[in-house]
Amino acid sequence: MGASPSASFSVTIRVEIANARLVGVVTANISEAGGAITALDMIEPGPETLVVDITVNAEDEVHSTKLRDLVDSIPGVTVRAMSDRTLLLHLGGVLGTMSKVPLKTREDLSMAYTPGVARVCLAIAKDPSAARNLTIKRNSVAVVTDGSAVLGLGNLGPAAALPVMEGKAVLFKRFADVDAWPICLASQDVDEIVRAVELIAPVFGGINLEDISAPRCFEVERRLRESLDIPVFHDDQHGTAIVVLAAILNALKVVGKKLKDAKIVVVGIGAAGVAISTLLLAEGVGDLIAVDRTGILDPSDKNLDEQRLHIAMASNPNRVTGDLSDAIVGADAIIGVSGKGSIQESHLLKMASSPIVFALANPDPEIDPVIARRHAAIVATGRSDEPNQINNVLVFPGFFRGLLDVGARSITPQMEIAAARALAGIVGDEELSAAYIVPTVFNPAVTKAIADAIRSTVRPEHSVVHRQS
Amino acid sequence: MGASPSASFSVTIRVEIANARLVGVVTANISEAGGAITALDMIEPGPETLVVDITVNAEDEVHSTKLRDLVDSIPGVTVRAMSDRTLLLHLGGVLGTMSKVPLKTREDLSMAYTPGVARVCLAIAKDPSAARNLTIKRNSVAVVTDGSAVLGLGNLGPAAALPVMEGKAVLFKRFADVDAWPICLASQDVDEIVRAVELIAPVFGGINLEDISAPRCFEVERRLRESLDIPVFHDDQHGTAIVVLAAILNALKVVGKKLKDAKIVVVGIGAAGVAISTLLLAEGVGDLIAVDRTGILDPSDKNLDEQRLHIAMASNPNRVTGDLSDAIVGADAIIGVSGKGSIQESHLLKMASSPIVFALANPDPEIDPVIARRHAAIVATGRSDEPNQINNVLVFPGFFRGLLDVGARSITPQMEIAAARALAGIVGDEELSAAYIVPTVFNPAVTKAIADAIRSTVRPEHSVVHRQS
Repeated sequence: MGASPSASFSVTIRVEIANARLVGVVTANISEAGGAITALDMIEPGPETLVVDITVNAEDEVHSTKLRDLVDSIPGVTVRAMSDRTLLLHLGGVLGTMSKVPLKTREDLSMAYTPGVARVCLAIAKDPSAARNLTIKRNSVAVVTDGSAVLGLGNLGPAAALPVMEGKAVLFKRFADVDAWPICLASQDVDEIVRAVELIAPVFGGINLEDISAPRCFEVERRLRESLDIPVFHDDQHGTAIVVLAAILNALKVVGKKLKDAKIVVVGIGAAGVAISTLLLAEGVGDLIAVDRTGILDPSDKNLDEQRLHIAMASNPNRVTGDLSDAIVGADAIIGVSGKGSIQESHLLKMASSPIVFALANPDPEIDPVIARRHAAIVATGRSDEPNQINNVLVFPGFFRGLLDVGARSITPQMEIAAARALAGIVGDEELSAAYIVPTVFNPAVTKAIADAIRSTVRPEHSVVHRQS
Repeated sequence: MGASPSASFSVTIRVEIANARLVGVVTANISEAGGAITALDMIEPGPETLVVDITVNAEDEVHSTKLRDLVDSIPGVTVRAMSDRTLLLHLGGVLGTMSKVPLKTREDLSMAYTPGVARVCLAIAKDPSAARNLTIKRNSVAVVTDGSAVLGLGNLGPAAALPVMEGKAVLFKRFADVDAWPICLASQDVDEIVRAVELIAPVFGGINLEDISAPRCFEVERRLRESLDIPVFHDDQHGTAIVVLAAILNALKVVGKKLKDAKIVVVGIGAAGVAISTLLLAEGVGDLIAVDRTGILDPSDKNLDEQRLHIAMASNPNRVTGDLSDAIVGADAIIGVSGKGSIQESHLLKMASSPIVFALANPDPEIDPVIARRHAAIVATGRSDEPNQINNVLVFPGFFRGLLDVGARSITPQMEIAAARALAGIVGDEELSAAYIVPTVFNPAVTKAIADAIRSTVRPEHSVVHRQS
């Protein structure tokens, strides 16, 4: 599929133009070359030479460079500079701290800091559970990565992963008023990752693991869930699985089918694929077939790790063997969490009536949505420029909001199912359609519905009672 | 010395009063019992029963309880509740996060987070030094503790240390716009502390160690300074030493003496005492004698650790032996960083003319300032209710502001001396007096002067060049 101009490739080109009439020539040239002009700012007006800032959405980095060179080649026009709006936005980072209390007078200082703070320390030393009330632990989450699987970009390391973790932290704040802080670890050793998170845990009320590659992410999460008394959530697994389950529930509703009768094929059994498969099985999908690079998951395969073996055994009741071409026959839905090209048009032809296609690889879906829509009743992707965007931002803010509010110590499958049902429920029957199976991230009902769902599932032994000490 | 009512022991007592005339009786009783009323709020006015919130500064916790019981014992008056304003202030913690960028539209999201953020990650992966420009590393500091020496309270552990670290973080923000985040480690093992800080370092532009007990703090700092490429600063050592040097420089000026001719005795050679002695020696004090619990530091003492041995060898040129009574003879200044009672009135009688006494133990100084003032020309303490408060808040915000601004990779003794001189210089000759040797923390010139001093001392090899990538 061809890329379209987007704000994530927005640049501002500063041009010196010999006379006013040339401005129209410049903009026409940019538009003809596929750039979408979003703003024109006169920096130095003048009867003769003008300086103008032209802000343009380009398709990608190469395209923006091409646009600059094109403008520069127009006689009478000189490009002074081009700046990248996304890089400018990230200058100095996108996250900061703030004081929640006034610090104007000496009295303020004596309560927020020494000597008054000593009494707060002593109250916690006397009753450690008071830390959840008297400190930021009540509202803070560590966003932890080792930089081994940054977005779809691969193993970039901890420094290059930081912009993603910052972005995640500001979304936590924006959508759920959670105070999240990035922790990018300078090690990709499982023992070191686990120990580092255990050591920093006292400050946090929850741990959000992020962009840690499979299969290490499974062990990291399992061990931290065992050793910590705060919830640990690998968003790439569980966040994705919850949105997918919500979307599948609504998609099946649109085509008039039920999950317990549905046949669903999951393609790509990495971190996300494992979690999606596990959650669909827990919610009672009729027939699930998991397809990996090696074909349909086979319980007798000695190379399967614990997670994949569990899925292989619990899925595929009809013991279908082979690859995706065999698995897809008669399927009601296919969920791709692998990579570009792993779903072919020929596969869609073998599906049941009104097929559902989720092609979630980013930035390039498993199959071009335009092609998928020729055959499928419903298509969803991870892209923001397509309908039905499957986006984790729909889940993690409200999920942690609920966990923190009840002081949860762990995460249960019931919570994940409750969150998925709550998210699906936000789209009312009168709104639900093939192009609208999940709400948008700016719908303020999303965070509240998910947080309420979490709060309602927490059993007393999973939470601490919130009382003032 | 008797405690006086202070805001750090401020309570609000909610009382039900049978008739309006009794209100005066209640307030008179509180005042007579030593409570300082700061506010009276009518909650439920009425012709008969009234409900009133009385906010009172007490001397300490016992005193506030006594005041409550006293009010409750007045006929016609019933205490409904008493709340502690400091604990209320700390409910939910005092620190939060904020987004530095707008997050209102889908365009905003696509630049702050995916897909735009991918380009920022790739820019850093290509040029790791770009992390200092394109992420929060440029402005963020970890406030790291193991909870082993929390204020003067001792080994309370990481959870109970968190309120102090939060307080520190909000002061960083308030006074220098530095984004600091608390890291309270669940281990007091030196190897584990060092490794944990190394692992989390990618996110931060500096490390502020805090409330880690001696001698472990020396090793932690030394090893981190060796392994990390960001500055590491143990505030209890260096922050204190810088303020003390500034105060000593100004105090000597007031009494018309020079540092190179001065004899100064340091009492208590823990974390702060080591740093103060080291810095005074570096700045060229005439004669320094370091006195520990065992007496004057003796270079032949086999029990001395590396830091104390260095001080023992570099100090005491006249090889005086014995204890404080011997060391103090003819001293121009005494600096106490030990504990209540370690300086006696008799010691002050043996000092030179116009003696300077810094009694910095918190909350109870080494000698009652009232007694000290009978003999000393200048007295300074760590207390906010006495003149000449020696407070680290004067230093760490500006010090890190300077370090971050130049992208410093390490801290040099020259920086500490420059910071101390800059701090001392803020008090103009016309303002300087025995009761005003250091500026107050709310003086906006403080942060700027110290940051400027740091920036001016940084040599090119210690910094990274800041350019836009």
